[in-house]
Amino acid sequence: MAKYGFGLDLGGTTCKCGLFTTEGELLDKWEVKTDTSNGGANILKNLAKTVFDKMAEKNIDKEDVWGVGIGIPGPIDASGVVNRCVNLGWGKFNVEEEFASHMDGIKVKAGNDANVAALGEAWMGAAKEYSSSVMITLGTGVGGGVIIDDKIVSGSTGSAGEIGHMRVDYEEENACGCGNHGCLEQYCSATGIARLARIKLAQTSDASSLRDYDEIDAKAVLDEAKKGDKLAIEVATKACAYLAQGMQVLSVVANPEAFVIGGGVSKAGQYLIDLIQQEYDKIAFHGCLDTKIVLASLGNDAGIYGAMKQIM
Amino acid sequence: MAKYGFGLDLGGTTCKCGLFTTEGELLDKWEVKTDTSNGGANILKNLAKTVFDKMAEKNIDKEDVWGVGIGIPGPIDASGVVNRCVNLGWGKFNVEEEFASHMDGIKVKAGNDANVAALGEAWMGAAKEYSSSVMITLGTGVGGGVIIDDKIVSGSTGSAGEIGHMRVDYEEENACGCGNHGCLEQYCSATGIARLARIKLAQTSDASSLRDYDEIDAKAVLDEAKKGDKLAIEVATKACAYLAQGMQVLSVVANPEAFVIGGGVSKAGQYLIDLIQQEYDKIAFHGCLDTKIVLASLGNDAGIYGAMKQIM
Repeated sequence: MAKYGFGLDLGGTTCKCGLFTTEGELLDKWEVKTDTSNGGANILKNLAKTVFDKMAEKNIDKEDVWGVGIGIPGPIDASGVVNRCVNLGWGKFNVEEEFASHMDGIKVKAGNDANVAALGEAWMGAAKEYSSSVMITLGTGVGGGVIIDDKIVSGSTGSAGEIGHMRVDYEEENACGCGNHGCLEQYCSATGIARLARIKLAQTSDASSLRDYDEIDAKAVLDEAKKGDKLAIEVATKACAYLAQGMQVLSVVANPEAFVIGGGVSKAGQYLIDLIQQEYDKIAFHGCLDTKIVLASLGNDAGIYGAMKQIM
Repeated sequence: MAKYGFGLDLGGTTCKCGLFTTEGELLDKWEVKTDTSNGGANILKNLAKTVFDKMAEKNIDKEDVWGVGIGIPGPIDASGVVNRCVNLGWGKFNVEEEFASHMDGIKVKAGNDANVAALGEAWMGAAKEYSSSVMITLGTGVGGGVIIDDKIVSGSTGSAGEIGHMRVDYEEENACGCGNHGCLEQYCSATGIARLARIKLAQTSDASSLRDYDEIDAKAVLDEAKKGDKLAIEVATKACAYLAQGMQVLSVVANPEAFVIGGGVSKAGQYLIDLIQQEYDKIAFHGCLDTKIVLASLGNDAGIYGAMKQIM
């Protein structure tokens, strides 16, 4: 078995790159700019170049490279076809075939970036001990990934693990970015938590330290909740109740060993985990009450780890 | 490869048994009584006996038997441990190890009966063309199974595919058998549909042909809905809307190629499928709108087919 591999986490602004041993040790990491000009036509060629440049720099032969894995910001099916990646300017084509054409015979594998991050946490992060886990990434939106038997469940059209679009409210009048109403992302993303806070503040005249903020974001809500602000606690609890609803359903569908909570919102740490656990315990199916709820541990590196793991 | 295998679908009253070729042809089927006396202590011994009796009857040598698969009416984990099977009188023990001790070296494999039925439909039934599918069995309760890459997802504690216990209503005051409130089973099982009808009839004085029934069951609701009774249509639509809610979430978690609808309620046929499709289309995630919704095709034989497939 070759000694090295590469994990690439492609975003609309930069691509994070990692050089790994096949045992999972991260030897080097760096970033390259994503060239979205001309419909993103140069992106994969540029990524091939940065891999070959790094191999030259480190004196790594082609024979010593097990493969290159890549995470893509959009839905991708098991055969490597992306449907559309808005942030990259990409339409529909087979990323793996195109990337392979630049890689001179080195094995490549592509996956959705949120799924790939879940795989990273499952391989070397918070879910390292578990063969099945579900990662929920609470960022600007809500992403995620379902890992069963140490592999990503990508789904028939690449829509598995689209956890942010689980319908968790039937009476929502505002539309989600996806066009539906009542998606998890509308309540548990950073923007969703801020929205819940603004709604709550407008509904009541109760005193709250949140009223002192010029602009309320999820961090403000969770900071003030930790300090004991009653209204902030109500908002944070509500967001966690929605998340717990999603987890209740996930648990009776996939019954993972662990839920991994990541993304910017998860910087609230154990306070957030405890609140999620409190709400989950109220509604979980009896056979799923022992499912672990843990904080993600790889931060922004989860994507490169998971991208690498895809080729293993 | 040996030529034959057995699939056993164990219930609280009888066990359905099938002799198959390893290509999946059902050569013979029969039933044996389930002896629930003495905490079900004789059940597995009796099943071993019926297999060996059939082998003797058909002149099948041990070397020609690929294995024996069994479906169990209760949760079972990947290692073969059942936690409790109320209908059989069983407590917690390893079914596979115990059954193997009676099978003289013939390979055995056990799975949850609802999951196993899903595998049967995926192997030789309605989802034969698909490598990923979710079966939803609308019977006295609601069961199901998640099939990914032609294999059952059994979950870390055997609770994967417990589709009847997806929480799909947040305001339900009546408890489900599991102790929770708002489980899919409370609305979409045969008893759930009858319950929705009784609630609706009590809430309104509108005329309905359902008022002519001494006792309302799911068949009455679907029969009268087909005939155009407005109230029956409302009840059937409501049940399908709950089911569609469950499917919306399933589709963004597992993104199967097909949903297979089975169980007694599915005898309502294409009318039911059309109604489910109508409700699903209203709320499905855009990436999952093309998921097929099909009627189960193996009826009561799904369990023996799936039990057999487990050993393949």
